[in-house]
Formats: sequence, structure tokens, C-alpha cells
Amino acid sequence: MGSSLKYNRFLRSALAEEGSFATTTDVLSWIASRAACNRFTVERIPFGALMQWSTDQDTGDLVHSSGKFFRVQGARVQTTLGYIRQWDQPIIDQPEIGILGIVAKEFDGLLHFLMQAKMEPGNIDGVQLTPTVQATRSNYTQVHQGARPPYVDYFLDREQSRVLVDQLQFEQGSAFLRKRNRNIIVEVTEDVPVGPEHCWLTVGQVHRLLGEPNLVSMDARTVLSCIPLVDGPHSHPPTAITEASGGLDLSSLSLFGSALLESVRESVQSVHRDERVMSWLTELKCRHQLSVERIGLNELRSWKRGPDVILHEGGGYFNVMAVQVEANNREVASWDQPLIEPVERGLIAFLVRRFGGTLHFLVQGKIEPGNPDVIAVAPTVQCSLGHDRLGDRGSWPPFLDVIQDENRDSVRYSCVQSEEGGRFFHVENEYRVVELPPEGDLPLPENYLWVSLRQLNELLRFGLVNVEARSLLACLPLTA
Amino acid sequence: MGSSLKYNRFLRSALAEEGSFATTTDVLSWIASRAACNRFTVERIPFGALMQWSTDQDTGDLVHSSGKFFRVQGARVQTTLGYIRQWDQPIIDQPEIGILGIVAKEFDGLLHFLMQAKMEPGNIDGVQLTPTVQATRSNYTQVHQGARPPYVDYFLDREQSRVLVDQLQFEQGSAFLRKRNRNIIVEVTEDVPVGPEHCWLTVGQVHRLLGEPNLVSMDARTVLSCIPLVDGPHSHPPTAITEASGGLDLSSLSLFGSALLESVRESVQSVHRDERVMSWLTELKCRHQLSVERIGLNELRSWKRGPDVILHEGGGYFNVMAVQVEANNREVASWDQPLIEPVERGLIAFLVRRFGGTLHFLVQGKIEPGNPDVIAVAPTVQCSLGHDRLGDRGSWPPFLDVIQDENRDSVRYSCVQSEEGGRFFHVENEYRVVELPPEGDLPLPENYLWVSLRQLNELLRFGLVNVEARSLLACLPLTA
Repeated sequence: MGSSLKYNRFLRSALAEEGSFATTTDVLSWIASRAACNRFTVERIPFGALMQWSTDQDTGDLVHSSGKFFRVQGARVQTTLGYIRQWDQPIIDQPEIGILGIVAKEFDGLLHFLMQAKMEPGNIDGVQLTPTVQATRSNYTQVHQGARPPYVDYFLDREQSRVLVDQLQFEQGSAFLRKRNRNIIVEVTEDVPVGPEHCWLTVGQVHRLLGEPNLVSMDARTVLSCIPLVDGPHSHPPTAITEASGGLDLSSLSLFGSALLESVRESVQSVHRDERVMSWLTELKCRHQLSVERIGLNELRSWKRGPDVILHEGGGYFNVMAVQVEANNREVASWDQPLIEPVERGLIAFLVRRFGGTLHFLVQGKIEPGNPDVIAVAPTVQCSLGHDRLGDRGSWPPFLDVIQDENRDSVRYSCVQSEEGGRFFHVENEYRVVELPPEGDLPLPENYLWVSLRQLNELLRFGLVNVEARSLLACLPLTA
Repeated sequence: MGSSLKYNRFLRSALAEEGSFATTTDVLSWIASRAACNRFTVERIPFGALMQWSTDQDTGDLVHSSGKFFRVQGARVQTTLGYIRQWDQPIIDQPEIGILGIVAKEFDGLLHFLMQAKMEPGNIDGVQLTPTVQATRSNYTQVHQGARPPYVDYFLDREQSRVLVDQLQFEQGSAFLRKRNRNIIVEVTEDVPVGPEHCWLTVGQVHRLLGEPNLVSMDARTVLSCIPLVDGPHSHPPTAITEASGGLDLSSLSLFGSALLESVRESVQSVHRDERVMSWLTELKCRHQLSVERIGLNELRSWKRGPDVILHEGGGYFNVMAVQVEANNREVASWDQPLIEPVERGLIAFLVRRFGGTLHFLVQGKIEPGNPDVIAVAPTVQCSLGHDRLGDRGSWPPFLDVIQDENRDSVRYSCVQSEEGGRFFHVENEYRVVELPPEGDLPLPENYLWVSLRQLNELLRFGLVNVEARSLLACLPLTA
């Protein structure tokens, strides 16, 4: 890790398993202590007890008293791809673009990221590691009439910082219409005040914490997934690429770390040309349709509404419920809000495989109601794991059998991660990456394709990869 | 032009000023003869005389009898960027994805493209050079009950061809809601029947024909703009890049040809890092809003409707009118349709400038009602040149003065090109590229940025560049 790696400061930070401040072990105790010393209670309440939210008399929609923030309404969905092709569902309409922002600063020659220990009402263990700032536009323009979130000015005022990453990325297409966040990392050189809820960590430290269940929040994961750990080959002269790997102890790298470095030197080794990848996506967008009609929450077919829950008649999918929150360390000390509560645990998994030595990921083109453009690039498997479904193999989505049946030796990552606790209540997903042997035939449905890590990162950069895939990509450890 | 260029067959074709078939001079006579030997009449008719279109009683919208194809309706637009920020206008809703497809085949070691001499009702000189196929979904699924367009199967059936380019690109955001076309080039090896309306040309020949006014159609230009004339640096080992320019007679290249080759070797020479370019676009999308409410054509404020024209009360912008068409060489022999007719000639121009030897283009982030995502990357200047506007310099958009005042020596391209004659009637735009000297200060409004050709091509590939900019980029000659 000599100066030959200077050209990519992100990668250096990712390879640093300890930083200049808290050790990774310290971080675990710090997070536990944040949970212990803050009062934070979350209580289920009936919809009728919501003070800041009301039910629209005409539509039954749940709306915030400011008219901003978000709205829970209904969607009538029709599509041409997938196991079920026509359904109604509750959906969250959140047109505002929020900020998921991390402040970065160099200490001892290493980029550190200011991470926050934050509570959200839907979190399973209360406190998770989040970006420096996560704020809806309503937050930082103070619709809630709370204090302006600290650090937010680093992201809004370019005089104070230098942008390292700044991409619009969309969130769960199964639950949101139009929800996008600005995934942004800015670098500062000035002194940054660090409160008790914040801590400077290297990317490598965050990677290690991603081995713990439900600790690093989805918001942190999506921002991490946008980090260009290796520069594009255009960013430096060809010699630097060779130097890069020359200066590295390759034996310390994991499968994914090696794939990252390879991706710069990849030349023509992808199974498919870049234009073929683009064509696959174009073809799917031309062939398939998605129609999402907004309807009132009280017009939903096959859903029923009780005083404190909206649920599917078949008992599947998710519920809408409401909570009352008391906190002593948030810009607003107490509030209430609706949340999405899952009925089943989910599975988010990639099959990976080496083709000619180059690691490839099996992606699917998936339709979900909130997709910005019909088809999004999704993980190999993204589904719920209800007992009903697991019992009936006929209903399994493609490759679930491969993921479930694979022996332990080929599992390259496996952990339980939860979804964003500001909208989702106790949503857990199994995250898994399974490597297939290079030989053997694996027929693919039309909406599946093998892409290299470089190709997947390029699609991600342009906002075409869904949050489930981004989130899993962020988890992959670079070192063995 | 030896074998060192084999790795990019598009570039070789672009440097070939003559091909294996018609000479470029022959092409001009062929196009003239196609116009002479085909009966094609276009007659203005009142809306009431339209046979295949009717006026919706409730909304006043002009709709096709099939319910498909397109619809002329109204849009109420509100935005936060630009000279005028609130207006009503007629707009064409065309949700179907059409095909703009070119069949390519290698002859004598050179890629040739099968171009068509095609008439469209809105063309100024009747016949223009178009892609092999241009077809709406209604065309090729035979909603018009005409014959299935020839050659269309090469694009729909992947067994018959290999995809070279396949991108979804959107069209005029000022006139269309949601109109996107699949810009696709496929290569075949089998014998292709060539009728009297088609001809094999090299990219270089088409480039030379782009020096003629109103000859190469907008549809052809947008497909050409998607061609990766140089591969990304990842597509071949670094040595090939050096070889590439080694095998070339650099003195034969134009400013743009040199910039293309440079773009592969560009390394860190762009004025702005790629993440800075992305951040500029992200920031504009977060800062600005675009609201487009669909309204009935009879609800438009400030527009009036006569029996044969819908026009703005101030006399500006464009009119909607209708024509009756008779043709003997189209899948449908006679039809009628509404068209958009401009009131003024337009200007589409890029300022270019060398920074540290690397050519950069000044792009603007522009809002138009049909933009897929609020802001699109547009040319430096994209405006109409009405007498009113030209007389009042205060109303000029940024940099129009620089384009207008620049002396002849710095004009790198100048020609009149027309817009798509299937929707636009006699729409002409001046296309111009003006080079600024490297020295001197040029302050930029927030929504303008200098980007290198490689960066612009990357934005284009992901569908972020508007059709006006794409169309102008396609015109740039590679050889001096």
C-alpha cells in the first residue's frame, strides 16, 4: 500500500481496516452506548391517534399535515414481466429529493468518513451507522420546524467542500413512487466539529462492520455503493494501472477486491461487449410495459384496513401501520408517522462466476412500480421468503434454488441487513453472494445477463441499478 | 489507415470518404431522382377534413382513429429555469417507442450502412436520407394496416443480425411528451436485398452529405450520433490506443477527428473530473423543478384555434396544422395527419474551446416539458431566431451574442438542417460550431459547463443528451 495507490484515495481507505480514530471494536461499543444513553421509544398507535398525519376523507390516503414529506396512497399496477402481473398495493409517494451525505476528510494521509450513530423508529436494534446527514428536503428546509440538521451546509454550500461523489439514486421500487436521494460525498479540509453521535471511519472499517447484522444502515450502504473504488481507466495513464497492482499485496484481497483491480485492466475480457449490455436493457424496455395508476388508499382491491393496520387479504407482502416516537437527540423530539412493516423476511442475492478469470455478476432486469424507467437492474434473486413460497418450489423465482441449495463453500458473503428504518419497520433481508464454478451450463431467461463488475459499476453510476443490488454490492469485503 | 485501426470499424468507415457502391456525387443524383420519379403531394387541409384523425369532443385533442400513433394535446408547464417560466402549449403525446434502425454490412473490409431516400410530408425538399427503417410501433405492428415496413425484421429478430448500437434516445422536449426512439444499428453478413430507395454508404459519405442543407434527416443524425467512433479505453489494451493514432495520417483529420482520437488518450486532461460533471447535473436536477400538467387542447391559455391552424396569440413559437398526403411508395398510399409548423428559424450551436490542447464543448442544462428527467444536456445555444428576438438583445439567451458576433475564421461547422418531417413541417435550424480562442475569461451561468468530447459521448450513451445536441454532434466532419 505504498504511494503507487495514491491515485485512488477511496481504494486506499477501503483497504485500511483501521483508521486514525476509533478502532472497529470501539465503534461497536460506541454504537451500543449511543443506544443506551438516549431515550428513544417507539409505540404502535392506531391511525386515528396520529397527530401530525390525517386520513384524506375522499381517498383514504395518509397525508402529513404540512402537505409535504410523503403520502401513503394506492397504486394499481399492470405489467408484462414477473410471476404476478396485475395487482393493487399501498405505495409511498415521496417526490422530494433528499440528501444522503457523507463528509470526508483526510487524516494521516487516509480518507475518513464521518459516520453517524442514528436511531430510526423502524430499526431493529435502535441505533445504526448512517451517513453524516440524511435529510429530506422537508427536513433541511425545516417543514417539521425542528432544528436544521447539523452538517447539512457542507452539502448545500459548495464553497465549504469539494464533491467526490454526487449521484441521484432511486430507492425501493416496491414501496416508493419517485423517491430519489442525492447520494453525495464531499471532502473538507477545515476542522469539522464532531459531536457524540458522529465518528470518523475509513471505508475499510465500514466494510468490516458490514459483516455484522443490521448495523450499517441502508442509507449508508447506498452511498458506499456509489464510491468509485477504482478510477475509470481514462482517469490516469496506463502505467498507473500496472503500478497500482504492483504496489499491492494481492494475497490480502478477497474475490471482490481482486475483481475491482481487474476491472481497470479488464480490456476485452467481459463476456458481453458494453453495447450488448446496453442493448439487453434497451430490448427489455421496449418489450415490456409498466403501468402504475395512482388510486386512493381506500380503492385498493384485496387489501383491508383496520383501525391500526392496512394489510393484504392473503396475509402476504407488507402491512402499513403507524408509530408514535419519542427521542431526545433528534431535531424533533417527538413525532408520529406511518411505516411499512414486512410480513416475511426477504432474500437479496447475487450469483457470481468467473469467465476467463474475470468475475461476473448475474443481474436481472426487474419491473417494480416505482422504477424510474420500467426496468431496473436488480440482483439475481430479490424475493420474500415466506413459508408458503418456500414450500412451493413451483413459485420460486429463477435461481432461488441455486442460491438455497449451494453448499457453504461457495458462499462469498452472507449476512442479515435491514432496510431504512425511517420508512420500514423491522424489515430484514438475507444478503448473500454465491459463486458458481466456471464450468457448466446455466440457461438464462431473457431478462438475466452476466455483467462484469466494471459494467455493473457503470450502470450504477447512471442510476440504473436498484437499491437492493446497490446495497448488496456495498457489502462485499475487499480483503480476505 | 492500416490494420492498426481494425479495432474500430466505425472509425474506419467514418474516415472512408467513398465506399464500394455509389460515389457521394451519385448519391445526390439518386436522391434527386427518387424525388422526381415518385408521386408525393402534401396539401394543407382544415382539421375538419382529417379522415383518420378526429377532435375529441371533451378535450379538443387531435386523436388518431386507432387510439394509437400519437395525440396532440395541451400542456401547462411550470419551471424554475429559463427566460419564461410558466406557459401553456400544444404538445404531442407519443408513448410508443419507435425504431430508428440502420442495417450495416461489411464490403471490401469497410462497414457500409444501408441508408434510405425517404419522403416525409414535412420535408422541405421532399426526399431526405434516413435510416434503413424508421417505424413507430404502430407502423410495424400494422395499426395503419399498411404493409410491414421492409427490413424491420433485422431489428426485431436477433437471429438475423448482431447489434452494434442499441440505445433509447428521447426526441424534441419542446414538442413531445415521452417520445423515445430505439436508435439501433445491426450488422448482417447475409445478402440483403437493396431496393431502389436504399443505398449502401460509409459513415464518411454520410458525413460529407451533412455538409448539404436539409439532406440528411434528423432521424439519421440521431442514430449517427450514437455510434462509438472510438472505443472506450477499456475495450482494448493500452498499446492499441497508441497504435491507433500511429497508423493514421493525422494531418487529414479535422478539429473533431483529432478530438475523437485524443478522447481515448485523454487521461486526466478534462477540465472537470467525471464526478464533477455528474455533480453539476445532479445539482441542477435537485435545484430545479419542472411540472407538466396535461390539459385539453381547448384549455390552452394564450393560444387560439381556427379551422385549419392552432397558433399562439403572440404569433410566436409554432403552429399546429394538418396535411393530406398522397404517395406511391409508402406502406400506406395516402393519409392525413397533424404537423407542427415553426414560426421562426432556429439556431443550434456549440461553442468549443481547447483547454490544455483538449477540445471541450460548452453544454447547458436545459429544461423542456418533454425532458425525461427535468434537465437535459443541450447545446450552448438552442433558440429561435425570430425578428422580434434578434431585435432585442436583452432577450437573447446566454452566448447567442458570442455565436452571432464571432468572425468567420472561428466557425468550424455551419449548415442548415431540418427536423423530422413526419411530425414537423418545414422546420429549419441553423447548425453552427464556433471555436473560441484558448485564452480569455468566459463567465458561465450555473447551468453551463465545459465538457470534453469523451464526457459528452458518455452522457449521450446513457440518454442524457437532447436531440438537438446529438444532431449537431453527428454533423461534425472528422476530416479536414
